[in-house]
Parts: sequence; C-alpha cells; structure tokens
Amino acid sequence: MKNFVYYAPTEVHFGRGTENETGKLVKKYGGTKVLIHYGGGSAVRSGLISRVKKSLEESGIAYCELGGVVPNPHLSKVREGIELCKKEGVDFLLAVGGGSVADSCKAIGYGMLLDGDVWELYEHTKTADACMPVGMVLTIAAAGSEMSNSSVITNEKTGSKRSYNSNLARPKFAVCNPELTMTLPAYQTASGCADILMHTEERYFTQVPNMELTDEIAEGLMRTVIRNAKILMKEPENYDARAEVMWASSLSHNGLTGCGNDGGDFACHGLEHELGGMFDVAHGAGLAAVWGSWARYVYQNCLPRFKKFAVNVCGVKEEGTDEEIAVKGIEAMEDFYRSIGMPTSLHELGIAPTEAQLREMAKRCAKAAGGKKGSAKVLYEADMLEIYKMANSR
Amino acid sequence: MKNFVYYAPTEVHFGRGTENETGKLVKKYGGTKVLIHYGGGSAVRSGLISRVKKSLEESGIAYCELGGVVPNPHLSKVREGIELCKKEGVDFLLAVGGGSVADSCKAIGYGMLLDGDVWELYEHTKTADACMPVGMVLTIAAAGSEMSNSSVITNEKTGSKRSYNSNLARPKFAVCNPELTMTLPAYQTASGCADILMHTEERYFTQVPNMELTDEIAEGLMRTVIRNAKILMKEPENYDARAEVMWASSLSHNGLTGCGNDGGDFACHGLEHELGGMFDVAHGAGLAAVWGSWARYVYQNCLPRFKKFAVNVCGVKEEGTDEEIAVKGIEAMEDFYRSIGMPTSLHELGIAPTEAQLREMAKRCAKAAGGKKGSAKVLYEADMLEIYKMANSR
Repeated sequence: MKNFVYYAPTEVHFGRGTENETGKLVKKYGGTKVLIHYGGGSAVRSGLISRVKKSLEESGIAYCELGGVVPNPHLSKVREGIELCKKEGVDFLLAVGGGSVADSCKAIGYGMLLDGDVWELYEHTKTADACMPVGMVLTIAAAGSEMSNSSVITNEKTGSKRSYNSNLARPKFAVCNPELTMTLPAYQTASGCADILMHTEERYFTQVPNMELTDEIAEGLMRTVIRNAKILMKEPENYDARAEVMWASSLSHNGLTGCGNDGGDFACHGLEHELGGMFDVAHGAGLAAVWGSWARYVYQNCLPRFKKFAVNVCGVKEEGTDEEIAVKGIEAMEDFYRSIGMPTSLHELGIAPTEAQLREMAKRCAKAAGGKKGSAKVLYEADMLEIYKMANSR
Repeated sequence: MKNFVYYAPTEVHFGRGTENETGKLVKKYGGTKVLIHYGGGSAVRSGLISRVKKSLEESGIAYCELGGVVPNPHLSKVREGIELCKKEGVDFLLAVGGGSVADSCKAIGYGMLLDGDVWELYEHTKTADACMPVGMVLTIAAAGSEMSNSSVITNEKTGSKRSYNSNLARPKFAVCNPELTMTLPAYQTASGCADILMHTEERYFTQVPNMELTDEIAEGLMRTVIRNAKILMKEPENYDARAEVMWASSLSHNGLTGCGNDGGDFACHGLEHELGGMFDVAHGAGLAAVWGSWARYVYQNCLPRFKKFAVNVCGVKEEGTDEEIAVKGIEAMEDFYRSIGMPTSLHELGIAPTEAQLREMAKRCAKAAGGKKGSAKVLYEADMLEIYKMANSR
C-alpha cells in the first residue's frame, strides 16, 4: 500500500425529502446570498427549484439564479456566472443538478476569487488559492462531483474539455435524494452507471499489488452498481436501486476507492475528454465506448489486476490461463455495457470520426496529459491513437 | 435503505513518515499553541514525541504537554487538561496515541468551551455547542477515534464509563503511520482488531434488510481485518498487514459501514462499557468476551443478517437451515477470536464478577442506555443480565 491522503469533508444528507434541508445547510456553512445554478428546464418543471427556493427562504437566505448549464458544461456559462455572482454579491454557490452543474459551480467558485482568467486553471498554467463555498442538490447519479475535488469544463470555442482538481472545491454539503433521479431517461441512467463504474475502474487498474481493503471496497462498489443498473433498466422507479447507485456515485469518486494506489490510471477519462470536447457525447457513454478497446490494449501489462477484476467483479470462473480469464472479464464487462444500452465502440456511440480527427484527438489527449497517461500501461500519443482506432473499427 | 447523514471531514495522511507532517497540518487548521496529549512513556521512549515536537517547531508552533492518559481514560486527567490548556492559552489539541488519548483530547476540547462541568456531557444532562480543534498522531489501530465523532471517558471515582458523540469533535486531521504500531504487544494488537471488527458488527446487525453497498463495504472490511489480524499474530512487523488494519480502524468507526442502517445495535459496546468501568479491562478484549454470548442471545431475532454474516464474512457454506448457518458463523467468529488470543468469556477475560456485580452492571448498562439498547434485538435490563450470566458461565 502506498502513502495516501484521504480527504472527503462533504456533509452528505441522503434520502427522501432531503432537498428540504438545503436552506439550513447553506446557513450552517455561512451562506447569505446564493446562486442557484442549474441545467435545463426539468429541475424547474419538476418543482425541485421551487422546493429549494422555499427551503432557502425559510432559512432567510437570499438568492439569484442561472440556468442553462449543458452536459459538457461551457466555459462561456462559467464566465457569465462569475460576472453575475460578483455583481449580485453571491457568497455561496448551489448546484441543483448533476456533475455538469456542479463542475460549472466549482469553476465559478474558483473564478470569483482568481486574479486572472478561470480557463488558465484548466490549462494548468495557473493554480487556485481559494474557491467560494459550493453546495449541491443532486439529480443525477453519475459524476460524483458532489463529493469530489474534480471539475471538468469545455471550452466550446476550441472543443477542449479539460479538468482541474483541487480540494478547495469539494462541496460543503450534498443533498442526495434518490427519488429525484427516477424520471431520468434510461440512456442517462445507464450513462451515469457507466461513469460511476469508471471512476472506480480508473483507480483499480494500477501497478500496486497490495491494496486489500481498498480493493474490497472497489470490487463491492462495482458489483453493486452492475447489479442495480440492470434493475433500473426494468424498474426505473425502484427506490432502493436508485439509492444504491446514487450512494455509489459519491463514494466512487471521493477518493475512497483509490486509497493506497499510485494515483490510478485515468487514461479512459483522458480519451473520453477529447470525444466529449469534439463530439459532445454523454460522458458515461463515451467512457463505455472506449473502455473495451483500452482494456484489450493494456491488460497484458496489468494482468494480475485484470484477472482479479474478472473473477471478483464479473464473476468469471478461475479456469484457464490468467490471460484467458482476463479477456473473459473484459468481455463480460462489455456484455454488461450492452445489456444496459451502453456503446462499446465509437460506431455504437453514434459518431464516425475521420482518420484526421482521430489523430487530432490523440494529439490533444497526449498534450493535455503532459505527454503520457496511465498506470495499467503508460500510454503515449501513438498508443492513444491505436486505442481510438480500435474503438473506431469495432 | 434508510435516510442517513454521512460526515467524515478528517484529513487523513496515511503511510510511512507522515508524523513529520504534523506541524504543517496543525498550522493549516489554525493552531498556534498546542497541547501534546499522550499516554505512557512508550511514545516518549520511541522518539515519536521528539519527532512530533520537531515537526511543530519547524512550523513555528508552540506547545505544552500532558502525558499519563491510561486505557479507559480518566475524568480526572481530562479536568487536569482543561485547566492546563486554559492556563497555557492552548488553541489546538494534539492526541499522540490511540483511542484513549484521542477521547481524552476530545473531552478536554469540549470542556474548555463548556459552561459547566464536562462530565455532564457524558451523563447526557448537557449538550456541547463547541469543541476546540483536535488533531491526531495515531499509534494504535483500534478505536477509530481518529475519524469518529465518539469519545468515551471513565469516571474513575464511580467506575462509570460513558460516551458522548458529536460531530464537533471529529478530528481535523489524522496522521496514520502503520510503522508506529509495529512494536505493540500481540494482546494489544489483537484487542485493537477485535475493537475494529466490532465497530462494523455493531452497525451490521440491524433490522434494515436493504443495504447493498454498505454491506459490501462492511463485509469487505471485516474480511480484511480477520485476514490481517491472523498475519500480525505471526508477523508483527508486516507493514502491509499493519496498514490494512490501521486503515480499517478509521473506516470502521467513521460512519461509512452504517450508512442507511437504523443507527446500529451497539449493545455489545454498552455491555463492555460496564466491564471496562468496573474491571478496567482492555476494550477490544471486553467486546470479544461478550460478543458470542450476545450473538447467541439475539441471533434468532436477526436471522437473515446472521446468516449473511456467516456466509459472506466467516466463509460458512450455505448448507443446512438458516439457523444452523447462523450458529456456525457465531462459532467461526469465536474460533477467530481465540486464534488471535482474544477471550470469548469473562473467565477468559480474566475476571470473575459476583452475582451482585453482574446485576449492578446490567442495571447501570440499562440506565446508561435510557432503559433499552439494541437493534438486532432490543435488550432490557433483564436481557443484559442474562447475557452477562452467559458470558460468565462459559
């Protein structure tokens, strides 16, 4: 086990009706004037925004609002938010939505206190010293941004999707009511499950052999998501299945499933960021579309853990060579993706990049990672291109 | 899954050499004058206290010190600490030791800011509004106090061992270096493992049937501790085994293994507190000594979870009736306790209470719990006496 820092200070209020605690929680963490940040109209139409406003009013909290955050959230919206919040004297940022809204809030929080342009953080040419406090009312189980230090923003002018990670932006609180996710379309639910799984897979496939408790937690989490994702395809209003998946979303990306590893792999995230930036695909679906190709490209370099994954997560019997077992695990995982309507190729993802676009994505992916990325196998630009090609030809 | 709040904000720095980060962490959390609180002389003799002082000095942090905290930490020492800290202008409390030292620090932290006597909190006749910040350098994997909201103090004049739980006292940081636990005597290591296991068992044996992710984590944690406790009996200097057990100690009592339950059972803790208060036994050993009797008394009322425990944690085959499987699980757990030198009866614990003492403990246990305690089965004074008698006659 390697040395690690674990820090996940977010106060999670989980379960039915918890959105009504929003006002008290904002007050507890010192907010007096809130930005309510959200995405499309569903949060308004469902009455959620009204309930949140009522909760804020009952605690004497003033607010302004900014909707219109899109999946792969835009830098322009972040800039609009920074300007609005400065003008309105906002001292607390409340994300009502999923990962895109949370990530946009975190970016606004950095930008309000930054001497310079917020995109510099995401280009890694600057470091944040502070972030305005962020809280969250979660409506999609997926990104885990409600407990994570991560924020991913897309510069829609250049098609660059970039991340910035800092503990400064970990939300003060997260209100997680599984009922709020019951009306999601099946594709979004499945895409969320793929994202949750990937956050733990990225931490699991490393070169560190001796993580027992972390592996037990990681494997248990992945089994739980796989079981309950299948249930949700048939029973979207199954509260318990929604709850398991939602709690998994928070734990999968708060650091817990990587304690003692070498920082994790995260190559699939890098590969997907270029797909998301260039083609605006759903993040989880994009991850599923490249995972199988990535896994086939790297597994021989990380055989013990691919075998462990096959046996402990995918239920593959320990028969045959380690390599055979590992491949069966990859196949089982792809079967699972397909069973919940997730793609396992770029074609199934609904995109058809040209050779030139594949080259451009590989180039950008390598550049964003500082030349190389990965732990299961260290990937350079040529490797990334190879994986994109594999995913494009399946 | 029931609604829950999860809040574990402690910043954990885990691994070799992390005690040298103490000064920076105290500074980060605003400390300028520290109380170094510790137990016996081993922390001094090993050079740990010197390294901690050096780290504080390098960060420009002033300090005073108070040693002599004993297992089942005394109220008189807490009062001495409160007086010293007020006199010295201490603004940060640093526990260097195990659960007893951490719990004593938390009590001092409450007492410094309380209008009234600190024991009133533990008698539950008063509630704390604040606690001075606490940090921790951990030297024993056991109590989990490094991330928990719990503090247990013994009023040595009356023999009452009582707990007070509040998020106000969750440590700001915990420095966890597994190497620091390598020189512990086998009995203390084993007693720590028993304590760690029990913190999850207390949360596991409830009437809530539908906790999948929480159960996966709980079962994985218990398996990990059982495996590594056995290793440590033969290889006390096995770093990885020490690390697994130490990380398990933090996660077992920070709330994670009970998310979605009904608050847990905690009857064994109640029963042990009276043993600890009256006979000053090691906490983990006391827990092990009553667990089997408690389990036999309650399992029929909580059969599905005792069966699940037997199969998933103890490796019992699913053959025979549920009751037979559950009993095999209890027997397997007791076999494990014996294999690491832990007692499974009061006799093996080294005490021989009289009938009058058993009655007195049952009376006190019921009173401390407000008349009844437990989830697997709700226990009243007569039940508690019955369990004490079972544990005393084995």
